[in-house]
Amino acid sequence: MNNPWTTQSSRLVYETPWLRVIEDQVVRPDGADGIYSYIETRVAVAAVALTPANEVYLVGQYRYPTQHYSWELVEGGAEPDEAPLTCIQRELREEAGLRARKWSPLGNEIHFSNCISAERGYIFLAEELEETQSAPDATEVLEVRVVPLDDALEMVYQGEIQDAFSIIGLLRAQRHIIERTVG
Amino acid sequence: MNNPWTTQSSRLVYETPWLRVIEDQVVRPDGADGIYSYIETRVAVAAVALTPANEVYLVGQYRYPTQHYSWELVEGGAEPDEAPLTCIQRELREEAGLRARKWSPLGNEIHFSNCISAERGYIFLAEELEETQSAPDATEVLEVRVVPLDDALEMVYQGEIQDAFSIIGLLRAQRHIIERTVG
Repeated sequence: MNNPWTTQSSRLVYETPWLRVIEDQVVRPDGADGIYSYIETRVAVAAVALTPANEVYLVGQYRYPTQHYSWELVEGGAEPDEAPLTCIQRELREEAGLRARKWSPLGNEIHFSNCISAERGYIFLAEELEETQSAPDATEVLEVRVVPLDDALEMVYQGEIQDAFSIIGLLRAQRHIIERTVG
Repeated sequence: MNNPWTTQSSRLVYETPWLRVIEDQVVRPDGADGIYSYIETRVAVAAVALTPANEVYLVGQYRYPTQHYSWELVEGGAEPDEAPLTCIQRELREEAGLRARKWSPLGNEIHFSNCISAERGYIFLAEELEETQSAPDATEVLEVRVVPLDDALEMVYQGEIQDAFSIIGLLRAQRHIIERTVG
């Protein structure tokens, strides 16, 4: 289980506020010299914002890299030094105009594409919601819908929700609710 | 649901055989000029290789970008012009030394990190397995385990499996098996 790679040097080859590309000179597991390039990005955070009637908030937006319209959980990227929970509280306010009085972590850290990316994600269940002022980013054009969790799960099963983070968040919320109902 | 972004120009700023970084000059949804950078990579493919006793094959390996040891499905990246199914048949042979006579798609295309990445993933259920010769990449040091699907799902629930692709694949396999058992 030890790291079979040796890093000889590391350089930053490209950087934006959201994306860093790292190129490492390595010795590979088979002993040969090589290059391993990967990306670093902001910590990703998602919220399953749940009403007492087991409805959830979904956000719709056009995603530039995949060139398609995507229905997702409330999601965001943490600023440097911003805690995941603080980030998602901000995003829930900005994107859905909501504040939640009850927050629970939903499962462990997720890795989205661990062959080429160091990105890590955390999911929270947000409950006891109250409306506040929303303030979307200038770069975001968002729609917000409140749908029964069962309908959102059906969107997962039918492949209408394709965002890995949202798929996992909704399935974890389902399991969480079943477990606490069953006791 | 239309694309609210306008692409004015696009340039490739970094490229390896596995990773391309694209920097687009854009007009943002609010009308201001900006830059949108994102990555393109190989199509990702995963297999839930299932035995008649409902066991699955898990592959363990150290993942360089996340710097941790990760238990996952059999996964791979398609070569340019390689079909997803062809890719995963090759990976199943290389990583687990298996050939499957029955292949079924498990759900729709997945997007792993659609804010910064165009990466797309496909999952297949592989059944009627027979052993063949394995031939891992020189860059891979792999362990292979065969575990009951229920144990793999428990690893998902306990957060021991953290790879988004594997989490979704195992949960889809569970649902697929339940549905065909119930009829």
